[in-house]
Amino acid sequence: MSKGEVLLLDSWVSPFCMRVKIALNEKGVKYEHREEDLFGGKSEVLLISNPIHKKVPVLLHNGKPLSKYVIIVGYIDETWASPPLLPSCAYGRAKARFWADFIDKTLYDAGTRIWRTDGEAREAATRDFIEILKQLEEALGDKNYFGGDGDAFGFVDIIAIGVASWFHAYEKFGGFEVADHRPKLSGWLKRCKQRESVRKVLPDPEKVYEFLVILKKMQGPGPGT
Amino acid sequence: MSKGEVLLLDSWVSPFCMRVKIALNEKGVKYEHREEDLFGGKSEVLLISNPIHKKVPVLLHNGKPLSKYVIIVGYIDETWASPPLLPSCAYGRAKARFWADFIDKTLYDAGTRIWRTDGEAREAATRDFIEILKQLEEALGDKNYFGGDGDAFGFVDIIAIGVASWFHAYEKFGGFEVADHRPKLSGWLKRCKQRESVRKVLPDPEKVYEFLVILKKMQGPGPGT
Repeated sequence: MSKGEVLLLDSWVSPFCMRVKIALNEKGVKYEHREEDLFGGKSEVLLISNPIHKKVPVLLHNGKPLSKYVIIVGYIDETWASPPLLPSCAYGRAKARFWADFIDKTLYDAGTRIWRTDGEAREAATRDFIEILKQLEEALGDKNYFGGDGDAFGFVDIIAIGVASWFHAYEKFGGFEVADHRPKLSGWLKRCKQRESVRKVLPDPEKVYEFLVILKKMQGPGPGT
Repeated sequence: MSKGEVLLLDSWVSPFCMRVKIALNEKGVKYEHREEDLFGGKSEVLLISNPIHKKVPVLLHNGKPLSKYVIIVGYIDETWASPPLLPSCAYGRAKARFWADFIDKTLYDAGTRIWRTDGEAREAATRDFIEILKQLEEALGDKNYFGGDGDAFGFVDIIAIGVASWFHAYEKFGGFEVADHRPKLSGWLKRCKQRESVRKVLPDPEKVYEFLVILKKMQGPGPGT
């Protein structure tokens, strides 16, 4: 399914980059990815390709740069048609985009508060996080995947896996287990991890935790701590 | 161009609602809009239609609810094909979505800091705002509109007008004139205001200012003040 050269400016630990890689894998697109040293100095190609935000992921398709993961994943879905990641009807697409936005705004934010804060702020963040997962479980219902069309793996799953790759770290910081509170969502995550497109991309959860421990030390106490 | 019943849960002063109304007007879609009393209590239909965020705009198309303005405008573009608001090629669409996101994240945020803060914080916000407008002017280049395809009025224009409807208020709070700093952007805004789709929607700028004066009193000092 070649449509020219695909290069991803990447970071192994970034949920946003994981989403792009899973989308490319699902489509069977061959791509090169180049790890950016986000602390030691960003590459010139990153600074030129994304001059406004200077952040990964950046996808270069035949040299043309794209940034912002949600835009990149949409572009991948439109450029490589099969299998579709977004539903085929406009209303289904709108709903999928709604849940992607919800996951990104609320779940990721609550997760960040879990690892960045301590004490009461962290306890509050953990409660928020589990409550948000409840809303997601309700959206999942009895389906295998958020979809895509019907029960198929799709756009919302890809967005959710990005955050879920950090669940283990959230659990260790917050002292809880997602599976104890949200067994359905835990089942969904296990199913996702069995897909080759996902398995190839997700990093060792323990390494994510160690990365966040270091990042927390570098950044100092988080908001509300 | 009827495809059934279209009802917008609306607020006259909301830039997000304006975007939806301009998109509907551009497409020639007949719609009803119902003003929500955002301070005095939200309607039951709003709470039922958007249970997670409880915010306008909500578009009900044949009774099916959609929320989040950027998703709604995308849905409108996919559902009523002509004239297209987003470019016809995937890369063009990705670029348009990038600028829409940029406008929403940076310009609106800087604008909010102008009216919500005072003193040095407001001066800093005003400088940021004018700097962001510079980046937007560069994106506009010598075109009449951000587009859309080529030089046509489109998605990015609609997103930008939403914020621009508050420019007069920002100017009064911040003690500056957009036209003095960014004449090209000022010209773009004049062109947009000549379109019927826009003129019908934009509120009296002085009323927006008065609304923000009241809102500021209600909310107290803003962040960084």
